[in-house]
Formats: sequence, C-alpha cells, structure tokens
Amino acid sequence: MNSIEKHILVIFGGSGDLTQRKLIPALFDLYRKNMLPKIFAIVGVGRTDLDHESYRELLEAGLQKFHGVLPEQTTDFLKLCYYIHNDFQSHTTIELFSQQLYEIDIKTQTKGNFIFYLSTPPSLYEPIVTNLGKAKLTGVSEKFPGWKRLIVEKPFGKDVASARKLQQHLISHFDEEQIYRIDHYLGKETAQNILVTRFYNTIFEPLWNRNYIHHVEITSAEQEGIGNRGGYYDSSGALRDMLQNHLLQLVALTAMEPPTNFNADSIRNEVLKVFQSLRPLNLENLKKQVVRGQYTQSHVGGNLKKAYTEELDIPANSRTESYVALKFFIDNWRWGGVPFFIRTGKNLPTRVTEIVITFKSIPHPVFVKTASTQESKNQLIIRIQPDEGIAFRFGVKIPGIGFDVETTNMNFKYAQKEGVELPSAYERLLHDCMQGDASLFTRGDAVDLAWQFVQPILDEWESNPDFPLFGYPAGSWGPKEASDLKIGYGEWRYPCKNLNSDGGYCEL
Amino acid sequence: MNSIEKHILVIFGGSGDLTQRKLIPALFDLYRKNMLPKIFAIVGVGRTDLDHESYRELLEAGLQKFHGVLPEQTTDFLKLCYYIHNDFQSHTTIELFSQQLYEIDIKTQTKGNFIFYLSTPPSLYEPIVTNLGKAKLTGVSEKFPGWKRLIVEKPFGKDVASARKLQQHLISHFDEEQIYRIDHYLGKETAQNILVTRFYNTIFEPLWNRNYIHHVEITSAEQEGIGNRGGYYDSSGALRDMLQNHLLQLVALTAMEPPTNFNADSIRNEVLKVFQSLRPLNLENLKKQVVRGQYTQSHVGGNLKKAYTEELDIPANSRTESYVALKFFIDNWRWGGVPFFIRTGKNLPTRVTEIVITFKSIPHPVFVKTASTQESKNQLIIRIQPDEGIAFRFGVKIPGIGFDVETTNMNFKYAQKEGVELPSAYERLLHDCMQGDASLFTRGDAVDLAWQFVQPILDEWESNPDFPLFGYPAGSWGPKEASDLKIGYGEWRYPCKNLNSDGGYCEL
Repeated sequence: MNSIEKHILVIFGGSGDLTQRKLIPALFDLYRKNMLPKIFAIVGVGRTDLDHESYRELLEAGLQKFHGVLPEQTTDFLKLCYYIHNDFQSHTTIELFSQQLYEIDIKTQTKGNFIFYLSTPPSLYEPIVTNLGKAKLTGVSEKFPGWKRLIVEKPFGKDVASARKLQQHLISHFDEEQIYRIDHYLGKETAQNILVTRFYNTIFEPLWNRNYIHHVEITSAEQEGIGNRGGYYDSSGALRDMLQNHLLQLVALTAMEPPTNFNADSIRNEVLKVFQSLRPLNLENLKKQVVRGQYTQSHVGGNLKKAYTEELDIPANSRTESYVALKFFIDNWRWGGVPFFIRTGKNLPTRVTEIVITFKSIPHPVFVKTASTQESKNQLIIRIQPDEGIAFRFGVKIPGIGFDVETTNMNFKYAQKEGVELPSAYERLLHDCMQGDASLFTRGDAVDLAWQFVQPILDEWESNPDFPLFGYPAGSWGPKEASDLKIGYGEWRYPCKNLNSDGGYCEL
Repeated sequence: MNSIEKHILVIFGGSGDLTQRKLIPALFDLYRKNMLPKIFAIVGVGRTDLDHESYRELLEAGLQKFHGVLPEQTTDFLKLCYYIHNDFQSHTTIELFSQQLYEIDIKTQTKGNFIFYLSTPPSLYEPIVTNLGKAKLTGVSEKFPGWKRLIVEKPFGKDVASARKLQQHLISHFDEEQIYRIDHYLGKETAQNILVTRFYNTIFEPLWNRNYIHHVEITSAEQEGIGNRGGYYDSSGALRDMLQNHLLQLVALTAMEPPTNFNADSIRNEVLKVFQSLRPLNLENLKKQVVRGQYTQSHVGGNLKKAYTEELDIPANSRTESYVALKFFIDNWRWGGVPFFIRTGKNLPTRVTEIVITFKSIPHPVFVKTASTQESKNQLIIRIQPDEGIAFRFGVKIPGIGFDVETTNMNFKYAQKEGVELPSAYERLLHDCMQGDASLFTRGDAVDLAWQFVQPILDEWESNPDFPLFGYPAGSWGPKEASDLKIGYGEWRYPCKNLNSDGGYCEL
C-alpha cells in the first residue's frame, strides 16, 4: 500500500488557519494509518517567529483543539515537523531558506524530493513561486536532485484575467505536471463515488443521458453565515467562492463521458470536454438564467440573525451575493436540451451538498385507475455531505386493493456500513499528491474554462447596477425569485440534513 | 371505493380447510374494512351435516384459531354466513340446493348475482359445474336474473389432457369471461408490485431486456416438508404443485411487455405472449435443463428430518420430486439469449420467494487499480415473501485512498413503511372477482400453454426410469447437481429470510 517515495512537504503559511485546522490533522491521520513514507518531514514556513519546538507546540495544541487528539498521542508525529521562519523579502532570506531546507533534507535523507504547499493568502503565491525559482527549487538541481511538486490552494484567481496571470506565472517556473490545484470537493469520498457509481455499475450509464434524464439539480447549501470572514468574502461572493470551482467540478463529475482509464489526464480530459461544452452565458440568457441573492435580517427560532450587510467587515452598501442560482445547458450529444440547475448560498436552512438526477416521466401511464395515483418522476440523489450516500426515489404499489402508487425510496448510506470512517478530503488529496496522482486536482486548462464560463456574470454584475440582487431572510432557502429559474421543472428540492427514509426530502 | 354489486358468494367445500384458513379470514378482513357490498351473503356448501348456526360456530372457531379474532368481534360478520348441506348425488338434491339458494337470495335481496367458489377436491369440479348447469345457475335465468361468476381453485388439471378436459367442461357451462382461475401468487402484493415497479417507473424498463440483463433467477423455497399432505403431494410433485402455475406466473410478470392498459384482457394477452414465446423443451435440451430432486434424511440442528419416502402416505419407492430446477429461454426480441433459471422445493433452508435480475457486467473496467476490486454484477432483487420489498445490489467506493469498490445495496422494504398491513392474496383476489376484474386470474389459454410447456418433462419423467432423481439432505438448498444448470451464470443465490442490509444474500 505504502509506495510513496521519501520527501519533504513544505507548507507555506505553516502557522496559518488552514494548516492547523485541515492539513496537519490530515497528515496526522495519514501518519496514524501508516500511509506516510518512512523517510518524511513536514516543514512549516511563515512570517511568525517560531522555532521547531514552539512550532510543534502550536501544532500539538491545534491537533487537540481541531482534531481531538491528546498531546501524548502526537509526540512521534511532531518529531517529523520543522519550522522555517522566513519572509522572502530579500535575496538573503531566500538563500537562508534554501540553506535551512537543505539542512533538513540532508538530515532526513529525503534526497531533494519536495512538495510545496501554498497555504498563504493568494497575494503571496507569485512571490513565493518566484523565490522558489531563484532558489532552484522548482526543478531538478545539483543541490536538490529529486522531484518537486506544487500544491496551490484556492482561490485560483478571481476572474479570467487574474487566473491567467497566475497560471502564466506558475507555468514559467513549474511544468503543468508539477502543479496540483486543490479543489477539496474533489477530495470528498462521495464526490469520487459519483464516478464509481456511474462507471462501476451497468445500470446507471444507459440511463445517464438526454433520453432518460429530465434535469439535473446540484445544491451546495451552507447553514452558517460568513462569520468573521467578511473581509475575504465580500471581495469574493458565492459565485467565485463556491460555484466557479466546487459546483462546476461536481457538474463535471456528473456529466462527463466515461474516461478511458483512471489516469490523471484521462479523467481531466473528460472534465475539460464538459467545460468546453458549457453553453456560454450572454447578456440575453444571463438575465433569465442567473439569480443572485443576499441574506437579510430574520428571526430564526427566536434568535435574531444579522443581515449580510450587518456582518463584520461588510460595507453597508455591499452588493456581494451570498447566494447564487444558475440554469445552464451542456451542448453535447449526451446532454443536449437537459437543463442543469445549480445553487449555493450561505445562511440557508441546513448544510447539505447533493446532486439530484430527475428522470423523465413514464411514456404511457398504465396505472391510472384512481386519482391518488399521481405523476411522479424517478430521482437519484447523490448526497455529498453530510450523511453521505445515495437514495433512489421511485414508485411502488400502495398495499391494498387496486394499483395505487406512491413514491418511496431506497437508501444507501455510508453510515450504515460498520466501522466506516470517511477520510477527510485533505487526507485523500495530500496522499494523492504524494503519490504523484493528479486525478483529483484541477488542471490549468479546465480552471481557465470555468472562469470563462462565469466571466459574463461577473461582468454583468460589475457593470449593470440594475441587475437584481434579491434579498432572502437568513435561514431560508434563498430568494423566491430562484423558483422562476425552474419553471417547467418543478420546485427546487428542499433537502433535509439526513438522508432518511424519505430520501432526505423535506417539505417546506 | 365500495362499488361492488350485491351478490351471494357460494363456497363449495364450505367447511373445508382452505375455506377456514384462507377464505373466511380474507372475507372477514374485507368486511372489517367495509369493502363488502351492503347486501351480501356467504353460503357454504358441503357434505358435512351442518345448519346455519353450527356452521357459524365452525367459522367462529376457525377465525379465532387461524386469524386470531375473538368471537365477540365476529358476531355481525357471521350473520352474513349460511350453510347448505348438499351432496349433489341426485336430481332431488340439486333441486333442493337450488331452492335453498333461492330462499337466501330472496331473503337477502341479492337479485340472483352469484359467485361460485370451487374449493373442493378437483374431482368434484366437474360434477358441481354440471349441477350448476342443471340448476340454471350458470347464466341469467328467470329465477336467478343476475350475473354468475365461477372461481376455480388450483390444481387446474394435472397435465395437458386433464386441463383441457376440465376447460372443455367449464366452457360448456360458463363463458370464459365468467371463469376466475385462482393463482394465489398473483394476489400477493409484491407480485403485483413487479408490474408497478416495471411500468410506473422510467428507470427500469430501458434496462429490462437482453441488452442489459445477464440472466433471471426465480426461487420459491419452502422450509416445510410435505407434512400430512403426502397423499395429494405424491401424485403432484413440485413441478405441478408450484412450477407450472406460480413460478410461470412470476416469469410472466417479470418478462411481459408493457400492457396497453390495466384491463384484464390487456394484461392477460401479455402473459399469453410470454408463454407463447417459451422455447419448448425437448428430449435433447430437457436432460441439460431440468434437475429434479427429492429430500433425504438429515440432521438439522440436532433434529432428525425424515426423508421424503419416510413421510406419511408416501410409498417407499416414490419417485415424486420435492424439488425441481429449470433453465429455459424466452424466444422473443426482448429476451433472446437471456437464460431464466427457476427452482422450487420443499425442505429447503428457509421460506422465501424472490426474483433476481442480474445485469451484465460493465463493458470496460475503469477502476482496476487494485486486486480488491472484483468484477461484480448489479442485481435487482424483488422479494415476494417474506419481508416483502426490493433490494438493489451495486458497487460503491470503499472509503479511503484509491478507488477500490465493494458491493452494497439499497433496500426498500414494505415493513419500513409505518402502519402497513399487506392484505392477503385471497382478500385481494376475492375482492377483484367481486368487482368483475379478472386481471389477476389466469386465463384458460395461458393455463393451457403453461401445461404444454411442462408436458415434455412430465412425459420424460413418466417414461424414462433413468432420468435422474437426485437426493438432497432435508434442509439444504437442493441437489448439488442443480449448480450444473447455472454453469457460466454464477451460483444460485442463497437468500436469507430477511431482506437485510446485505440484500438478503446469505453465504452458505
């Protein structure tokens, strides 16, 4: 199982929030499962003034706080961790960084294999990469003879132009094959299970096209507001923060053709083809196919919930969207004419991410004897989080005289399997990168196409002050105008937290 | 709901076992649910010397014993019940019967509408029908101006010749439309749910053919031996007792084309088409496609189980089969080349009836990275009894690194629905007959074809003393030679009693 070559994982932003909350817990879990190489080190890099020992104390505290691990359990793991204090402000500091890294490399005998993880604010991506280049840490050098990989956290740009600028910069120092762009949704078990469900089973693929599918609905709802991330969020918004990356990746997994094999480029070529087939939004259809919203003050269960514009660090006149819903089409042979509906938002009633495939109605009703037999469409629900699993809604006979029908469902829930602990997305993605497997990382060309797809929306929102920004009460399912997108395709689903015996379907 | 016309239900064999165990409880349940017509009577007819009052006492005792109903709950229901003591031995007794029935008709004001239920030994079917004809009770007459229907219990003949003789006799007195041949498997909720599953949902029908289905397996296992029915059973055997009727009906429901509507003749025309398409068995393929067995002495859980030939009323040299398994084909466009495997037997490990649709393998394995990913075929399991429901076995990702796959399943169980009490088969069928709906009764032409299909087996067994009769230990899954039938199509499924989280799949 453990075929990973020895290496050093260098985390820029080594004392930051993401590192403590996600990366170190994921690495600790890999360590615990004996999935790290025997020869291995973690090097945190940052502007905080720490030494190896105080860094380990910081990580120890973080593991306890965010991962519930007792300090005595982390001792051996923390011996793998080092810290380099560096600000990359001058040639001297770069040289110093290179020398310190070299010493750790020599000490641990990792032979110059490196993964560099950019877990800093995006503004530092370019300076860090420049300096890695100067330090000859982007390719094979005499001093560092091994392989180099670069993991880039989101956001990967904020529009087409900035994404291309970043891409150009990375490509001038690293080859595309060295670059691993994180989209942590791809690291989720159930996102990957979309592919297994589709391509390991015979019965779904024959139905998975315009002949049988009526429409596709993808929801990624967050129950929380923006919390104390207002500064970041207000410059981003739901479209950039969730839709351009995570939701479009789920669209790709749902819509792609079967890859020829499971190599990184085979699968990413198929993602690319989906993005190439997205019907472009223009001024004409944009108004009919895009709904944005911003949450307003409300009372939920006796508690006052703030409006978006009342949140910390948000200007009172902000027009940043905390909700976005989109209708679009994929113009290819498989999906011609099948609408995709996707939505994401903050301060919605529950935290849930799911894909709902709604199949067409039966061509001819055989059972129409009584009024209680209503038309109903089959649905396949792939629940990404929480309560990961699959539900299938279909019609069965109501017991008794006659042939009345009602909708029921079959469930598969990961939770029903004994002893199953779903690995975290970061655990999966870090391990894949260590193995040199980029299947679940986004490729530059696909990121570019995803930005191209949303750019007309960004432009319109930027330039047209009349484009509606609908309010929705915090804790509700978004602006009621979002229903207009779905005219002819039923209501949006109101998913429950649990994929229960009703298929995780809630009435409002 | 209750649109049934007033009538009298006349049960020949009114004091018999079936009447007490099944018919009266079913009628009582219909009464309790207010599903009987306001003006209605039950008339038991038999050679036992009873009057109305003593008959009601008999039924009261039966309802308590077989249905758990307290005497005080049955008082009103029993007022609907009458008894006519008659042996049909002479013209006088026929006249008397007619007169007694007339008096009840006048008293209850049912206007000469009658259902006659033949719940007697088959040898009495013809004399009773002859006498009904003599009494002018087979059609509209001045004395009895209403409609007449005839329910015929199984067995409907014991081979082609006897079935045709019986059919000729019935048809000489009743029209085909008046005749309701009972196959109580068709009255079962989940048997009917096969049709709802197939024709009320969009996702099954596109897959329901030779392009996607690998093979079909139907099992009807009984845990009991033959008990004290040896006299009847030894002259019948599993082929006549179960396969020719019940199992072939399940085959028809599974294999039929969508009916144009749900009228009796639409659906029965489709059944007929399936039977017309059964590839005939001949001396050549019969030896390779038919396995018969007879249970032998065994110890199960410390208890000695008798061999078939040690049972009550069974000759020591009996060659009657208590188990039969069959491989066959349906030669039409939908099923060309798809083998059907059906089996039934007594003294098997559990009581279960189910239909298993096994789909073909995926055309190209995308996920082949590790050895633990085994080839596995999707299965849809329709459980007729017990623990009625549907399970779907499919592959999902094993949580963790990589793309290993395991087989799991989704379940729908009627038991998971709250407050659901499945009506008994007889309840359903009696009610349908009262409504004049023959959809779930077998038609004469289909019965004839079903006999034609099994006749070569009967002939071969009768004429060829060398045709193997394999022993199998009582309590096992039948003779091991039955596995030979399935070569190339996997093992027979070993179903558990419960459709549990493993899809009701048991390892031996």
